[in-house]
Amino acid sequence: MSLKRVSVIGSGNWGSTIAKIVGNNIRKFPEYVSEVRMWVFEEMIDGRKLTDIINTSHENVKYLPNIKLPENVIADPDVKSAARDADILVIVMPHQFLNRTLAEMKPVVKPTSCAISLMKGLALSDVHGIRLLTDCIRDVLNIPCAALMGANLATEVSQENYCEATIGVDDPKMGSELKKLFQTDYFRIVVIKDEVGTELCGALKNIVAVAAGIIEGLGFGDNTKAAVIRLGFMEMKNFIYEFFGDRHPQEGTFLESCGVADLITTCYGGRNKQMGIALATTNEPLAQLEKERLKGQSAQGPLTAAEVYAMLERKGLLEKYPLFTAVHKVCTRQFDPKNFICCLANHPEHR
Amino acid sequence: MSLKRVSVIGSGNWGSTIAKIVGNNIRKFPEYVSEVRMWVFEEMIDGRKLTDIINTSHENVKYLPNIKLPENVIADPDVKSAARDADILVIVMPHQFLNRTLAEMKPVVKPTSCAISLMKGLALSDVHGIRLLTDCIRDVLNIPCAALMGANLATEVSQENYCEATIGVDDPKMGSELKKLFQTDYFRIVVIKDEVGTELCGALKNIVAVAAGIIEGLGFGDNTKAAVIRLGFMEMKNFIYEFFGDRHPQEGTFLESCGVADLITTCYGGRNKQMGIALATTNEPLAQLEKERLKGQSAQGPLTAAEVYAMLERKGLLEKYPLFTAVHKVCTRQFDPKNFICCLANHPEHR
Repeated sequence: MSLKRVSVIGSGNWGSTIAKIVGNNIRKFPEYVSEVRMWVFEEMIDGRKLTDIINTSHENVKYLPNIKLPENVIADPDVKSAARDADILVIVMPHQFLNRTLAEMKPVVKPTSCAISLMKGLALSDVHGIRLLTDCIRDVLNIPCAALMGANLATEVSQENYCEATIGVDDPKMGSELKKLFQTDYFRIVVIKDEVGTELCGALKNIVAVAAGIIEGLGFGDNTKAAVIRLGFMEMKNFIYEFFGDRHPQEGTFLESCGVADLITTCYGGRNKQMGIALATTNEPLAQLEKERLKGQSAQGPLTAAEVYAMLERKGLLEKYPLFTAVHKVCTRQFDPKNFICCLANHPEHR
Repeated sequence: MSLKRVSVIGSGNWGSTIAKIVGNNIRKFPEYVSEVRMWVFEEMIDGRKLTDIINTSHENVKYLPNIKLPENVIADPDVKSAARDADILVIVMPHQFLNRTLAEMKPVVKPTSCAISLMKGLALSDVHGIRLLTDCIRDVLNIPCAALMGANLATEVSQENYCEATIGVDDPKMGSELKKLFQTDYFRIVVIKDEVGTELCGALKNIVAVAAGIIEGLGFGDNTKAAVIRLGFMEMKNFIYEFFGDRHPQEGTFLESCGVADLITTCYGGRNKQMGIALATTNEPLAQLEKERLKGQSAQGPLTAAEVYAMLERKGLLEKYPLFTAVHKVCTRQFDPKNFICCLANHPEHR
């Protein structure tokens, strides 16, 4: 039997962090090739190729500076060569490039392989409305795909601070294999069977974080903020059951790291909350605020809110999701954030 | 048919706040006597009786200053006279005085009345181990008793900031009656059937808040804090099922205001978190820290942790609850807080 191989497709701060973990772990397992190929979108850094820097100094100086990567993590600028012969594909890239990259990888992907997505977001399609990123992977590559989510700030994980993650995967055998590759003393994995719930919590929580920021920006206290976070959490849950109920999301998922823990972390720190505060305390358009305060990076929450809003509007369900709706309207400046609380005064949860 | 009557037993900051809400609401319902009697433990304030001050200036100057109470809230220094003829008893007092007060009230309590407890804590008994405060009320007064819990900081509620609360009550008819009396535009009530889950979340969350404070005091980031909060949440859940499983706690309760929202609020602010930080950053004994930093008030979390620890030890279950156990040992200085994370490294959740 030939040895198994893991490849990491993507090398941002989260991708590099997870490559570090898998690279260290894999050496313990004789059934695996110890080399972990990592696809790196090639860039020039001070006249040197980023892949060369990673392969000689074992550091992703651009996206994860000051963290040593294990020497068995090999940067590869060619996604086909990185993905070829892999038994497990760890997919962790900016999701706007996902479809293009999948198309490129497709011819070389082993039919017996499996994937795990670490991406937090949603895809949009004219046919399906909102689409899971893992469904894009499953459909194009025709392999099973798990999701790893949780309260995982890449910088903290790369510094080996204790945290948890959730792997959602239908197949328990695939689940224990993945857990073995990812779990360390400081990165604690819980495997659950709920693939869609796990993935959707990771995407939808960013909308709630914008709401939490708006409330903070308006000067409300901890009480009100906790109420808003909870109502957002309930809308996440209802949304998941409403649109993905046929795929059996589970109540328990909301108490996992991908649910409550990731929600808490995101509502108390990070870009989406920051944008919420900015929206509540200025009159500037979102694009301007992102430019000024996120150095041109974008926050995921407003995008996800727009996608969710489009889906709810099409189905005539806006009234069931007053918080999601209000976030989108504040982000697009159709609605004064000062009235945010009014939208919640008669929330369906309280009827 | 005679008019119904509501009495509030207790007049601290939370008792006075709830009296304000009920006093305002009750005037809308013709089936109720508009007067709400509130039992006040008599004290002298600058030479005047606190009850006289409340009944003339309609303000509880000691426990809820600067908030006007409705004129139909009548302070009564005699608990028997306050409780007599009441159809609904709202019980909200420091729980160390509960048994004594119940014994005093017992002879005058209407057999057809019902109670609702707003107290967050546990009682201990040699016979039962840990006991619910509502069980003390049920047993002594022989009437049904609901619980109102949630992320409810009295000061914020008294200022009419938007928040939510959970009423746990077995009888749906009693539930809708109670909701009518407590719900306002800013104080939003969800009624659920899980009496014990509602009450226990309110008590156990304080242990988790001490843990969150310890982690913050040790300098860990949001990620680790979220993981610790979640593990504490899972221990709360397991504890409730382990010791009160025969009373049918419900999974959904943990997503209500009494669950996740109250937990978040308590882990990001308040005395218990503050004590956790102090325990992690000094070597002083808890009593000394409470004296210095809480002006002699005590924090509920360490007490609850001690009660829970005693119960777990007796049943040989300490290993299933490493976070609860570690909190108690840090509070009693049997264990160096620096090693707190080690206790979680092999948490049962991750096996």
